[in-house]
Amino acid sequence: MKALFFDGTLSVREVARPRPAPGEALIEVIYAGICGTDRQILKGYSGFRGIPGHEFVGRVVECADEAHGGWVGKRVVGEINITCSQCDWCRRGLGRHCSSRAVMGIINRPGCFAEFVTLPAANLHEVPPEVPDQAAVFTEPLAAAAEILEQMPIAPGARIAVLGSGRLGLLVAQVLRDAGGDVTVMGRHAAKLDLARAWGLKTVAVSLDDSGANGAPSTPAKSLSAVPAKSFAVVIEATGSPAGLEEALRLVEPRGTVVMKSTFHVPAHFDTARLVVDEVTLLGSRCGNFAVALDLLRQGRVKVQEMVSRVFPLEDGSQAFACLNQPSCLKILLAPGA
Amino acid sequence: MKALFFDGTLSVREVARPRPAPGEALIEVIYAGICGTDRQILKGYSGFRGIPGHEFVGRVVECADEAHGGWVGKRVVGEINITCSQCDWCRRGLGRHCSSRAVMGIINRPGCFAEFVTLPAANLHEVPPEVPDQAAVFTEPLAAAAEILEQMPIAPGARIAVLGSGRLGLLVAQVLRDAGGDVTVMGRHAAKLDLARAWGLKTVAVSLDDSGANGAPSTPAKSLSAVPAKSFAVVIEATGSPAGLEEALRLVEPRGTVVMKSTFHVPAHFDTARLVVDEVTLLGSRCGNFAVALDLLRQGRVKVQEMVSRVFPLEDGSQAFACLNQPSCLKILLAPGA
Repeated sequence: MKALFFDGTLSVREVARPRPAPGEALIEVIYAGICGTDRQILKGYSGFRGIPGHEFVGRVVECADEAHGGWVGKRVVGEINITCSQCDWCRRGLGRHCSSRAVMGIINRPGCFAEFVTLPAANLHEVPPEVPDQAAVFTEPLAAAAEILEQMPIAPGARIAVLGSGRLGLLVAQVLRDAGGDVTVMGRHAAKLDLARAWGLKTVAVSLDDSGANGAPSTPAKSLSAVPAKSFAVVIEATGSPAGLEEALRLVEPRGTVVMKSTFHVPAHFDTARLVVDEVTLLGSRCGNFAVALDLLRQGRVKVQEMVSRVFPLEDGSQAFACLNQPSCLKILLAPGA
Repeated sequence: MKALFFDGTLSVREVARPRPAPGEALIEVIYAGICGTDRQILKGYSGFRGIPGHEFVGRVVECADEAHGGWVGKRVVGEINITCSQCDWCRRGLGRHCSSRAVMGIINRPGCFAEFVTLPAANLHEVPPEVPDQAAVFTEPLAAAAEILEQMPIAPGARIAVLGSGRLGLLVAQVLRDAGGDVTVMGRHAAKLDLARAWGLKTVAVSLDDSGANGAPSTPAKSLSAVPAKSFAVVIEATGSPAGLEEALRLVEPRGTVVMKSTFHVPAHFDTARLVVDEVTLLGSRCGNFAVALDLLRQGRVKVQEMVSRVFPLEDGSQAFACLNQPSCLKILLAPGA
C-alpha cells in the first residue's frame, strides 16, 4: 500500500499492507487530517519514526477475530491511544493516560497517513449516517476540544477568551459557546476570524503570535495589550506559542482558569507568583471522548467542514504539509483513496 | 508606641499610636507572627515601607464608631485585606481579590509588628475562649492552608504529598489529613519531620531545597528523586523554591493537581507540555477564610502551639528575623506587650 513515511524526512513509500493482530481491525482510510502534532513530529517531537497521522475516517475491511466481524463494512473513526486495558487508568476509563500506551502515529504505532491502518476494535466508533466523511475526520480534534468540558464546569454566560484562531481554537470556541459560555476568539488572521464571526462568535483581531499553528516567525503580542487585564473568567491558550501562555495569564481574572491546549517544545517561563496571588488555575488538557464529539457532529452543533482548506492525494503529502505554512490555511486533509 | 519599621532596613522606632478611622477598631497586639512574606518584604517584595506584620492576636481597646462599641475588650484576630466593599469581588465575599485592596503590613497599610494596630471592625473575628493566644496567632496562616479545601475537593484517602516541612507545609499537611487525605510530608529537617510524625503524619526525609523557608542556599533535589514519579494525586508546593515546583510536577500523577502555596520571586521555568500531556492542574492558592481556621483551632483538629520556636519582645525584632534563618526554626512570635 501507499503511505507517508517519516525517517527524518517525509516521503511517499510503498509498504506492506498491515495485518490486524488479534482483537484488531484493518481499516481503509477515507480521509486523514493533518494536525499540529504531526507538524511537530516532522520537527522531531516524540522521536517518532514511521507512518505518522492520527486523525482519520475510514471503513473497516477486515477483523482478526470473528467476534468483531460485525465491524466489517462500517464507517468508523478510532481512538488514538492503544492501551494495556489492565492498569488503574484503563479500568477507570482513562486509558488515554495509561503509562504503557502506544499512540497511533505518535508513539510506537503506525499512523493513518496510509491507504490502510490497523487499530484494536475496542478503539473504534461507528460514524452516524448524518455525519459526512469530511466532518467525521474532525472527531479526534473535536474530542480534544470537548475534553475541557469534562475537566471543568462552564458557568452560563461565563466570559471566555480563546487565544488563537487556528483549527483547535475554532473548535474549542464553538464547543464552549455550545456549553453556554460567552466566547471571544482572539487571533490575527482576518479570514479565520471572519469564519468565527459567521458562526456567531465574538472576535478580536490581535497581533498575538500563533506561530505554532502556522509556522510564521514569533512576534511579540502587541495590540492584544489593548484588551484589559484580568477580564475573562476562562482563557484558552490555543496559539501554540509560549507568548500565548503569558497573555492568557494576563487576561484571566482572579480565581479564573487558564486552559492549556497547546504543547510547546520550549519550556515556558512565567511569574508563578501571579498564579498564587490571584489564585489562578492552570489546567492542562489533551485528548477527549470520541462519543461526545460524534454527538456534537451528529447534532450539527459545531461547524467543521468550512474549516477544510484543501484535500490532497497521499502522494502529495509533502505539499500538503507545506500548505499548512500559509497563514490562511486551516485544515488540510489527505485522501489516500483519491 | 513602639513598632518595627522597615525603610530599607529594619529598626525599632517610637511612632504615634494610630487612631481608628470611621468603621475601624484600635487593637492592642498580644502576639504577632513572623511569616515568609515578612522576610520577603525585608528583601524588597511589594516595595513596602512602614510597619510590617499581618499575623496577630490582640485585644480591641477602642472603636471609632459607637455602633462597633461591642468589640471593645474582645480578644480578636483580623483579616488582612482592607477592601472597597463595593466591587464584584467584595460583593461575592471574595474581598481578598478586591483590586483596590490594601493589605495590612504588605500593601499600603501599616502592619501589626507594633504595640497597636488599626483595622476595620468588619475584618475582626472574636477568638473563642478555648483557643489560647499562641494558637490564635496562627489563624491567618491556617486560613491560608485551609483555603485549598475551598478550591478543590479532597477525595477520601487521596494520596497527597506536601513538599516542604516548614510552617506552611506543616499546617497544610494537617488540614488535608483532617479533610481525609492520605498525607506524606517531604522535607529535609529531621526535627520538623519528627514533629509531623508525632502528629501522626507520614514523612519522607529528602534533600529537597526549601531555602525560601529558611534562607539556606538553594541545592538541587537529590534523594527526592527516589520517590517514584507520578505517584501522588495531589502535590502541595510549600518549599518556597522553584526547584520545589519542578519536583511537584514530577511527583503528580496524570489528571492530578499541584497546589502552589509559595510565591517565588524569580520566574519559574518548566515544561508546560507535561501539564498538557498528563492533563495536570496547577492551582494557585493564597489567603483563606478566618472562620474556618478558628473552628479548626477551637476543635483542636490542628496542632499549632508546638510550632512556636521562640517568642521575642518587639525590641528584639531584628534578632527574631535572624532566628528564622536557623534551619530548625519554625514559628517566631513577637510579643509587643512583653
